[in-house]
Amino acid sequence: MVATKSMERTLVAQLGEREGQEVLLSGWMHTIRRLSKFAFLLIRDASGVAQVIVDSKEQLSLLAELQDESVLEVVGTVVAEPNAPNGFEIHKPRIRLLSPVRDVVPFPINKGTLNANLDTILDNAAFGLRHPHKRAVFTLSAAAMAGFRKHLNEQHFTEITTPKIVASATESGANVFRLDYFGRNAYLAQSPQFYKQMMVGVFERVFEVAPVFRAEPHSTTRHLNEYVSLDVEFGFIQDHRTVMKLLTVLIQAMVTHVLDHCKTEAALLEIKPPVMPIEFPSIFFPDALELIYTRYGDDCREEPDLSPQHERWLCEWALEQYQSDFLFVTGYPSSKRPFYTHPDPVNPRYTNGFDLLFRGMELVTGGQRLHLYADYVKALTDRKLPLEPFSGYLDAFRYGMPPHGGFAIGLERFVMLLLNGQNLRETTLFPRDLNRLTP
Amino acid sequence: MVATKSMERTLVAQLGEREGQEVLLSGWMHTIRRLSKFAFLLIRDASGVAQVIVDSKEQLSLLAELQDESVLEVVGTVVAEPNAPNGFEIHKPRIRLLSPVRDVVPFPINKGTLNANLDTILDNAAFGLRHPHKRAVFTLSAAAMAGFRKHLNEQHFTEITTPKIVASATESGANVFRLDYFGRNAYLAQSPQFYKQMMVGVFERVFEVAPVFRAEPHSTTRHLNEYVSLDVEFGFIQDHRTVMKLLTVLIQAMVTHVLDHCKTEAALLEIKPPVMPIEFPSIFFPDALELIYTRYGDDCREEPDLSPQHERWLCEWALEQYQSDFLFVTGYPSSKRPFYTHPDPVNPRYTNGFDLLFRGMELVTGGQRLHLYADYVKALTDRKLPLEPFSGYLDAFRYGMPPHGGFAIGLERFVMLLLNGQNLRETTLFPRDLNRLTP
Repeated sequence: MVATKSMERTLVAQLGEREGQEVLLSGWMHTIRRLSKFAFLLIRDASGVAQVIVDSKEQLSLLAELQDESVLEVVGTVVAEPNAPNGFEIHKPRIRLLSPVRDVVPFPINKGTLNANLDTILDNAAFGLRHPHKRAVFTLSAAAMAGFRKHLNEQHFTEITTPKIVASATESGANVFRLDYFGRNAYLAQSPQFYKQMMVGVFERVFEVAPVFRAEPHSTTRHLNEYVSLDVEFGFIQDHRTVMKLLTVLIQAMVTHVLDHCKTEAALLEIKPPVMPIEFPSIFFPDALELIYTRYGDDCREEPDLSPQHERWLCEWALEQYQSDFLFVTGYPSSKRPFYTHPDPVNPRYTNGFDLLFRGMELVTGGQRLHLYADYVKALTDRKLPLEPFSGYLDAFRYGMPPHGGFAIGLERFVMLLLNGQNLRETTLFPRDLNRLTP
Repeated sequence: MVATKSMERTLVAQLGEREGQEVLLSGWMHTIRRLSKFAFLLIRDASGVAQVIVDSKEQLSLLAELQDESVLEVVGTVVAEPNAPNGFEIHKPRIRLLSPVRDVVPFPINKGTLNANLDTILDNAAFGLRHPHKRAVFTLSAAAMAGFRKHLNEQHFTEITTPKIVASATESGANVFRLDYFGRNAYLAQSPQFYKQMMVGVFERVFEVAPVFRAEPHSTTRHLNEYVSLDVEFGFIQDHRTVMKLLTVLIQAMVTHVLDHCKTEAALLEIKPPVMPIEFPSIFFPDALELIYTRYGDDCREEPDLSPQHERWLCEWALEQYQSDFLFVTGYPSSKRPFYTHPDPVNPRYTNGFDLLFRGMELVTGGQRLHLYADYVKALTDRKLPLEPFSGYLDAFRYGMPPHGGFAIGLERFVMLLLNGQNLRETTLFPRDLNRLTP
């Protein structure tokens, strides 16, 4: 046994500063290559992978029965070695076992790519997520959240936390998870929409990073039943254009933050930085349908919404026409937008609601909201919805609410599109869908 | 109507920089005092309250029918006035109504204190939260989250987001909300415990800020059924003392961050900064019981847990003995701690689990966890729990997990105790309890 209690741990990334010294490394047995008289042991910690030369009989026999992913402490001397993974290796190691692994691992995670199908990886998440590529994805994800908060804090937004158990469905009765709340019916929040609007009356500018829940019984690569929503809402806007301006700068700040803070991860995942003009192009909904008809021959001019194929075509056009990976579509029809959406004052068949498409897919939904109590009463009545379940929300508009708007970005979708990925399950730690509830 | 479209908005806090200039203020009619020939209008925005002198007949008649909280735009000239709230006032205003309020407000929010009982305030949250004291509380809360994340990011922790819909209860079958998940039973996560431990195998050091759900059917001032948990977990520790050290520095950093970033709010709420020695005192659980008996005469020496009164007594003692508002209690009995808690190697009747008490109440629960697969199998078997529901979690320990530990801080409780408050409903935007599910 090695007396390591008093030694301070060195991370793999710090080896360069400690050449010639004796150090303590702690981490996982990433892989071991056994030759006749010695072995190359690769030890992995949060910061990287280091090579250890094991040549004593005693130490070799200690390692003999271990499987990959065993957790070890290694005390040894740092020696410069140009052929080692990061220019240094550890000689004369004394090894202490913290958690031996004797089971064979479900699939190898010490190869450059992860050779297992997605379901196998997800079934074995506690293990599969250790692969360096997987780690890189979720380091990016953390940086995306950090970039989001950083920019909004600089713009004087206040972070809020709102309840996820609610008394009534936010936007529609369908697609909500029902819950037994001490014998009463309750629901999981589909979005913090009502709460973030109420908080505009308090702080003017708010954001929230929190899970949302959608009980949509389909299983596609584009949807999950639980995801993290990056929500923004703010007051004293002119109209949805003010919201789009803030969103544009926010997205640019998030992309820049992620690429600046995750250089290693971006290189590992071969991220192609998005093409982002200073101002993102924008197209009015009916014009978008017309364009699709003219350019691609699909007569969708009477459709109330865009299909996934339509979104891909529009993005293809925006990249060609405006050199932009992002495209705003404005003025979605009222029939397809929730009751709180502000109508287009010029043509009330359309709204001041928009989507932001990114690389062929909707990334953000947002818009200007109604702000006058009387307009809410009318909107709910027009849709034959009762007022009573909304009373706590409607109060905000009875007691003075400025013109306001906001949007919601899907975190996992942002990361997926940044990676040019195809499946949200690749950018969600523990995805939830129609079939998957574990781990 | 005023042509304000082209003018940029000035915040109340910026008035000092614009003396003599014409500015556009936007905000709420905080209050109006009508005299015979003119009126003092106070307009409130996110940054403060400004006084406007209204003396034209036309403008006075516009305001005549309005109630407090109407949303206005005011264009006028900034004039230095030592008697005004912040040294400046607005003269020759032209006022534009954005959202008139004609209903009488439920209770006044333009007084120094909020004179309404808590239930009335909570029932009218969209309105009551606008009171400057309420705003200050939730500005503090946002700063507490920011301080938490900032410190942990500096310590190389990675932020994670884990699912809130889970297939089985985390710690016990009781006290979980059940949910219909496409015809299957699912539950709301009581904590991210299993997931954050699994992620120690990936990132070594992780944290999460997210809601947790406890279906405890009581209604006390100390508990809510949904709250925000600040969760931390990290690997390569010696034992629970390593965790306590990190927690101590984190709490100090959070308090400092909040007080540094919320000077105005702290003054408004008359916050008494906590007494924090560099090292928080700590007492072993059986010694704590003995102390309570000796000092306060309550013979609780056979009790497996501390009562709220015990916690108050211990904190009284710690403040007197160690000049500390914080006190660690270590070594809670195994019978009262979850199965994943690491036993005290010296006396397995006790654990390496701790609580951190703050001003008479438990603020944090944490400890060292088991890290060997065989120990988990034994712990679950000893408690007569089946292995199968935990398989996705147990895999992490089959494939190598370092010694690790962590803790969870209740955000609303942290803010409540910082304010010397008594009721979590004061520091939760939209509380959820046995009786309250709205707004």
